[in-house]
Amino acid sequence: MATLLPGTKLRPHMKATKCTALAKLQVQAGHTTFTCATTREVVGMVKAGLGQDLLLANETVDASRLREMALLQDAALITVAIDSDETLHAASTAGIRNVLIDVNVGLPRCGISPDGAGQLADRARNLGINVRGVMGYEGHLMMVTDKQEKIAKVEQCMALLRQAANDVGGEIISAGGTGTYDFHHSTGVTEIQAGSYSLMDTQYAQLHLPFKQAAFVVGTVISSNPQWAVVDVGLKSLGMDHGNPSIDGHAVWFCSDEHTTFSPNDGPTPQVGTRIRVTPAHIDPTVAQHECAWVVENDEVVDRWEIDLRGW
Amino acid sequence: MATLLPGTKLRPHMKATKCTALAKLQVQAGHTTFTCATTREVVGMVKAGLGQDLLLANETVDASRLREMALLQDAALITVAIDSDETLHAASTAGIRNVLIDVNVGLPRCGISPDGAGQLADRARNLGINVRGVMGYEGHLMMVTDKQEKIAKVEQCMALLRQAANDVGGEIISAGGTGTYDFHHSTGVTEIQAGSYSLMDTQYAQLHLPFKQAAFVVGTVISSNPQWAVVDVGLKSLGMDHGNPSIDGHAVWFCSDEHTTFSPNDGPTPQVGTRIRVTPAHIDPTVAQHECAWVVENDEVVDRWEIDLRGW
Repeated sequence: MATLLPGTKLRPHMKATKCTALAKLQVQAGHTTFTCATTREVVGMVKAGLGQDLLLANETVDASRLREMALLQDAALITVAIDSDETLHAASTAGIRNVLIDVNVGLPRCGISPDGAGQLADRARNLGINVRGVMGYEGHLMMVTDKQEKIAKVEQCMALLRQAANDVGGEIISAGGTGTYDFHHSTGVTEIQAGSYSLMDTQYAQLHLPFKQAAFVVGTVISSNPQWAVVDVGLKSLGMDHGNPSIDGHAVWFCSDEHTTFSPNDGPTPQVGTRIRVTPAHIDPTVAQHECAWVVENDEVVDRWEIDLRGW
Repeated sequence: MATLLPGTKLRPHMKATKCTALAKLQVQAGHTTFTCATTREVVGMVKAGLGQDLLLANETVDASRLREMALLQDAALITVAIDSDETLHAASTAGIRNVLIDVNVGLPRCGISPDGAGQLADRARNLGINVRGVMGYEGHLMMVTDKQEKIAKVEQCMALLRQAANDVGGEIISAGGTGTYDFHHSTGVTEIQAGSYSLMDTQYAQLHLPFKQAAFVVGTVISSNPQWAVVDVGLKSLGMDHGNPSIDGHAVWFCSDEHTTFSPNDGPTPQVGTRIRVTPAHIDPTVAQHECAWVVENDEVVDRWEIDLRGW
């Protein structure tokens, strides 16, 4: 990714990995700006010395959390997304110095209508806040598989974002994700917010991107018979909103709270004690359920990374 | 529940709540025996002074975890489920003194075939281990809604468990869950392993049990327009394997990592800053994602409970 989108062309999203140890590898790869989804991610990144340019790409009206971030602004550049007068005033009251205008480009979630973006920026500047530009997330297009359709739809969304950027001013036009990182060559976007690319999951694997699945939940077979085996990896260790996880060479039958029942595509079922690699369907809510990640190189554990940005 | 299944008729399952503060209320209600799904739950319960009679209703071959539990046996009565020679030998090597034979009664998960239960018990006793009886979880029947069908199917499963109990000996025949707690009047079962009853969720609510939903994820509306609103409760705070959560009086559109998009059934969308109660579809993997629970009485926060048994 650092080759395709070097330096600040990519603003890696911490919501996917929640791990400052991994972020430090992204810094080594040349990225210096980061995206966050929660205030805890922002504060944790600053404390880890990674506060050079942090965007909270999410709205909040929690005064104490906004103040906690505002107090860090002498040590870090913190920019907060706003999409309403309520979020503007919360940021202003807390002393937040920099904002981006979050624009709705088609995904029914956060973001002001493109028509209102310029006026919200004006009101922010009237309160003495620096408006660095706009962001707009075309999240509803991540899994579109037809290339021409995806090019056309991303362009439609980004036309709305460019219109808003024109009204808002500032230097940042931030958009995109792992599913569209390669569809912004001529959209006018200045940076891509992708996070899942670094670890990937079975859903994004369907898009045949040039990134490999790198995170697995490793468990142990605790029960086995000629028909099926049970590994001690279950719902509490997997993000399940994209469906069941996968096990290479095996069929997953179902997941329970603490178990996954599965059978081999051919050959005998694995014996009790066998270690099994379970591949999550959705990486973000999977990582968020783990206290740490074990880094494996050539089948040896070489490091332990804390998932230190999880929780709220 | 304490009225319906007083004292040791119920062995409350800690996997649903993972909270020793809640377990202490169950002790006040007369229950003294508990079920656990993980070694961390067992160890945490002992440390909280709740180790009078703990069943690890799950298999493990992790020697260090088994030893950690074995070292607590002078302070606590700990019983571990086994369903194979591998799990028996792991328990024996670690010095575990008490086991139950876990019997497969129809759910394709853990448990030895009923025919093999007696011989596994013999081999355990030959190793000097006390076999307290059998357990068998009819988990595949929890959501059967037709009463006569459920009675018949539970009886079929429990006939298998009684057969195994007859061969195994011991005083415990442990089975059941929140979906079948009331279907064991004549099955010969000595105790029910139910956990979800204390907090409930939208799936179990479909069974019209005499238990109320008591756990909600409370969030704040962070974005709103005439068509929809967005609350800051998402995939990372909800167990999603039973589908989307519910919001009273509203339609849930979809959940993202940190958001739920929804609209009111009638009337205006709630304003930014409004607090919203999101009801999870599946309580166990929801609770497991939270560091603490806030206890509310008459709309006031009266206590904070740590979810102290989560993780691995």
